[in-house]
Amino acid sequence: MNFSSKLIEDTVNEFSKLPGVGKRTALRFVLHLMKQSPDEVSQFSTAFTRLRQELRYCAKCHNVSDKPLCEVCLNPHRDHSTVCVVEDIRDVMAIENTQQYRGVYHVLNGIISPMDGIGPSDLTIESLVQKVAAGEIKEIIMALSTTMEGDTTNFYIYKRLKEYSLTVSTIARGIAIGDELEYADEVTLGRSIVNRTPYENSLVIK
Amino acid sequence: MNFSSKLIEDTVNEFSKLPGVGKRTALRFVLHLMKQSPDEVSQFSTAFTRLRQELRYCAKCHNVSDKPLCEVCLNPHRDHSTVCVVEDIRDVMAIENTQQYRGVYHVLNGIISPMDGIGPSDLTIESLVQKVAAGEIKEIIMALSTTMEGDTTNFYIYKRLKEYSLTVSTIARGIAIGDELEYADEVTLGRSIVNRTPYENSLVIK
Repeated sequence: MNFSSKLIEDTVNEFSKLPGVGKRTALRFVLHLMKQSPDEVSQFSTAFTRLRQELRYCAKCHNVSDKPLCEVCLNPHRDHSTVCVVEDIRDVMAIENTQQYRGVYHVLNGIISPMDGIGPSDLTIESLVQKVAAGEIKEIIMALSTTMEGDTTNFYIYKRLKEYSLTVSTIARGIAIGDELEYADEVTLGRSIVNRTPYENSLVIK
Repeated sequence: MNFSSKLIEDTVNEFSKLPGVGKRTALRFVLHLMKQSPDEVSQFSTAFTRLRQELRYCAKCHNVSDKPLCEVCLNPHRDHSTVCVVEDIRDVMAIENTQQYRGVYHVLNGIISPMDGIGPSDLTIESLVQKVAAGEIKEIIMALSTTMEGDTTNFYIYKRLKEYSLTVSTIARGIAIGDELEYADEVTLGRSIVNRTPYENSLVIK
């Protein structure tokens, strides 16, 4: 594309670095910004410059937080002996939205992915092992995605925690509520039969 | 959504002001930026702050330009007596990409849209009328979209230019090359029959 302006070209290139944004969408964003007042543009710019500079992570669970400890970790009504291990803060938000989980979290900030050059030392696994070694945790719930990388990370953490006496569980995989059996994939359907649950459990809606 | 951080919430809100971006996509952008180095983030921010402050428009055709006049207007090999009227710079890029047009442009920077509070005075129509009044233009090609707003703008410009002796044409509307007749909408198909062109014209590929 010929943008007839170096400034526009630079900005389009910057925007198209965002995930899922191509040149065409980037150009749409740029045209939108060009129509905003200088104040609005600087407000936009300030928002994420501040974010990058001032954002803190919870010292205990590595979730994002404006304070040294996040709201979940500070909450005395949560069960601090149950820890749900997730990939990033989006998963925390998703689980919090269900309002079904009363334990705390541990955010890995990624998953083991040799293809992207991400090894165990790039994640917060060591901090998880230390928490477990301190002996305060009774159960770890692995809630990573069922990809090759997720499975690898699950297995790595499982091996690291084997020597400690605690329960390691994973979230239930099965047919989503409302889904038709005939359209479910074989792996999920197979696992949902193997890991069947007592009928009474499906009646309990808290 | 509960973002558990005011900084993230602010940035997500700013990003979701971009056209076609919802909270979920905005959060994806924010997570991407959080993983970038401070240098990369400031580079991103500088790009569009500079754009907003330094971007200039061509004094003649109102296209974006880093110089007082844009490359098209400065080009002596272009036909300066034929002016194609378009809504915004994306249309200039699209037409330039065809490499079929040798005239110059006039960018309206919008179309008349009472719903959005955009009247003729918000556009560069006055400057177009002045150029026509100066007597250097032989033909105006209207290349606006065939929406209610586009038609209104076409008609308004047509009325403003009626007193001057020049040709006002619109780009050809018809069945796109490669499209099946049976799937074409009735209005387009009807117009393509009324505005049929001599067979020889379809053979000329420059």
